[in-house]
Amino acid sequence: MPPPAALSASSSFTLLSPSPSPSPKLASFHSKHHSFHSATRFTRLRRARSLAPRCAVIEKETPETEKPDTFLRESSSPTSVRARFEKMIREAQDTVCEAIAAADGGGKFKEDVWSRPGGGGGISRVLQNGAVWEKAGVNVSVVYGVMPPEAYRAAKGAPTDHKPGPVPFFAAGISSVLHPKNPFAPTLHFNYRYFETDAPQDAPGAPRQWWFGGGTDLTPAYIFEEDVKHFHSVQKSACDKFDPTFYPRFKKWCDDYFYIKHRDERRGLGGIFFDDLNDYDQEMLLSFATECANSVVPAYVPIIEKRKDTPFTEDHKAWQQLRRGRYVEFNLVYDRGTTFGLKTGGRIESILVSLPLTARWEYDHKPEEGSEEWKLLDACINPKEWV
Amino acid sequence: MPPPAALSASSSFTLLSPSPSPSPKLASFHSKHHSFHSATRFTRLRRARSLAPRCAVIEKETPETEKPDTFLRESSSPTSVRARFEKMIREAQDTVCEAIAAADGGGKFKEDVWSRPGGGGGISRVLQNGAVWEKAGVNVSVVYGVMPPEAYRAAKGAPTDHKPGPVPFFAAGISSVLHPKNPFAPTLHFNYRYFETDAPQDAPGAPRQWWFGGGTDLTPAYIFEEDVKHFHSVQKSACDKFDPTFYPRFKKWCDDYFYIKHRDERRGLGGIFFDDLNDYDQEMLLSFATECANSVVPAYVPIIEKRKDTPFTEDHKAWQQLRRGRYVEFNLVYDRGTTFGLKTGGRIESILVSLPLTARWEYDHKPEEGSEEWKLLDACINPKEWV
Repeated sequence: MPPPAALSASSSFTLLSPSPSPSPKLASFHSKHHSFHSATRFTRLRRARSLAPRCAVIEKETPETEKPDTFLRESSSPTSVRARFEKMIREAQDTVCEAIAAADGGGKFKEDVWSRPGGGGGISRVLQNGAVWEKAGVNVSVVYGVMPPEAYRAAKGAPTDHKPGPVPFFAAGISSVLHPKNPFAPTLHFNYRYFETDAPQDAPGAPRQWWFGGGTDLTPAYIFEEDVKHFHSVQKSACDKFDPTFYPRFKKWCDDYFYIKHRDERRGLGGIFFDDLNDYDQEMLLSFATECANSVVPAYVPIIEKRKDTPFTEDHKAWQQLRRGRYVEFNLVYDRGTTFGLKTGGRIESILVSLPLTARWEYDHKPEEGSEEWKLLDACINPKEWV
Repeated sequence: MPPPAALSASSSFTLLSPSPSPSPKLASFHSKHHSFHSATRFTRLRRARSLAPRCAVIEKETPETEKPDTFLRESSSPTSVRARFEKMIREAQDTVCEAIAAADGGGKFKEDVWSRPGGGGGISRVLQNGAVWEKAGVNVSVVYGVMPPEAYRAAKGAPTDHKPGPVPFFAAGISSVLHPKNPFAPTLHFNYRYFETDAPQDAPGAPRQWWFGGGTDLTPAYIFEEDVKHFHSVQKSACDKFDPTFYPRFKKWCDDYFYIKHRDERRGLGGIFFDDLNDYDQEMLLSFATECANSVVPAYVPIIEKRKDTPFTEDHKAWQQLRRGRYVEFNLVYDRGTTFGLKTGGRIESILVSLPLTARWEYDHKPEEGSEEWKLLDACINPKEWV
């Protein structure tokens, strides 16, 4: 899975910072040779790759003690889309963290701020082992980087014989995963991001590009239909304010994206997911992303309030843990943002905060047909219409 | 990571059964186009891939009630290397399972036998939630398949302008992961495999190839130097019987293979690992693989006997669980056999039996410098010489 996919479709954004890594071409070149060679070649290979001329490059992040007003480079105008998107995601981070901390009662968010010398940075907030959530991470990041020209070309399918230089890009996003303790309280994930490329450095004529991506999805271990209906109808209302085709289209997209191929099942009960969105008015899409981010709390927190104290047995907990194992499988094997971030040296603790505090794998576990566990599994295998 | 790597270097073998999947070429072709497209294309892509003419192909496995004397096709002679290798790994499976069940006292191995219509099959044995081991899997498999010609060509670096047809191959192996409950008792992994290719179907002149691969490695959560020294010296003795260069070379290879790049640390304290081994006498290498497989019980069980009842605290258990999380990260992100098997439809329950029963991820966990946890981590970051 090449960088562009991750850049455009991460479901855990903070990691999307290119760093020494081969362009797709180089990667396949190396991997082919690597394939029948000894693992001792890893190190030599990695050195070779990091010298590859067309690599994306970014500096390592440095911890900060203070939050800057903006992670944008000074050159950015405060009325630009990138400036207003950064403002939006940082406000969303505050709102969501306040709502989660309030609903949790016990836990507090630990904050880590980081920046990069050349511009960009991020704020990671994590609440761990709270009263309601065992792990809740809400991260924002602003990334400046340079992507291999293949990415840019692949994006718009330009003729591959044309060889532009590396493409500078800007990416900002908010990403969050919230894992509650109670097996009847669902996990939530959301991620909204905005992406811009400059023209390729040595092809000034080529167009600048921008797009939006993101989504919000629900992953319960047990189905309470009223909860799932509530969650999806809030997503639908947010979509319907902008385009009646959005919800059906992005609901399907979500079911397709969070697919665990080797299990032939989805991670959870979906929600909305979209990517590469640029064929609408830019202002309209900025408002849409804002509306989606603002819908997170009303879509999720009422469900938690209802389920956080439901009594449960060890069996309920074990099933939740098995589903958490599936969450780990999806994020480490398929999630484009995670896999790309791990390969290219994003901030590991920010990337892997999406993993649950604990997970479980039982050999050949099959829920009894007709049981509550089976019903959840069935809904993950055969996505349903909830509204 | 293309199929050949997995075929040649799996550390969890049972999954190494090619099935509808793109050749490396097709894969990169598709992924490039996929990269900026919607996840809804997954399904269409998969269909396109499964139609690709040069795909490796294998039938889905079917459960069996009886163990056949051999999984080899009738054409195979009982004196052939493949026949003697199958006999060896099936005897090793019996020996290891008996020793583990005896040391466990409580648990029993559950056996699953499966076969494929065209020949080949496997035996999976899993002991779950025993007295000593929380999860212990010992699998053997015999696989007939056809690999993309790229694999064959990449193997021997033949000129890439030459286009042979698909290459029929035979692969047999034993693979095992043993996860104890007690945080002071280490996890063991071992895997030994033998691989043969026929000549490419439409290039009869091209040579038939064979090679051996495998290894045994130890993954403790806490270091007892005498245990690690014992484990490594048994590996060294096995190696030294055949070639004084084997242990130093395969010890290094192991440290390099089980590297979690995004953590810059190894999964554990290593052991031996080798692959693509064919530049020695074939009979000698068969004896070497046999010696290695026979060394598993003496290298591991005495350590378990010593540590299985050591009293421990919740903190010890939590640290073990964090290390189990690293085990999951390595197997799902880097292990060639696992990643290939997941992509290409191996028997999922056999592939993922390597995952621990439970694992844990804490945000930004850093052991206190000088602590026992820190010492283990340090040894995973800076591999040591143990004998």
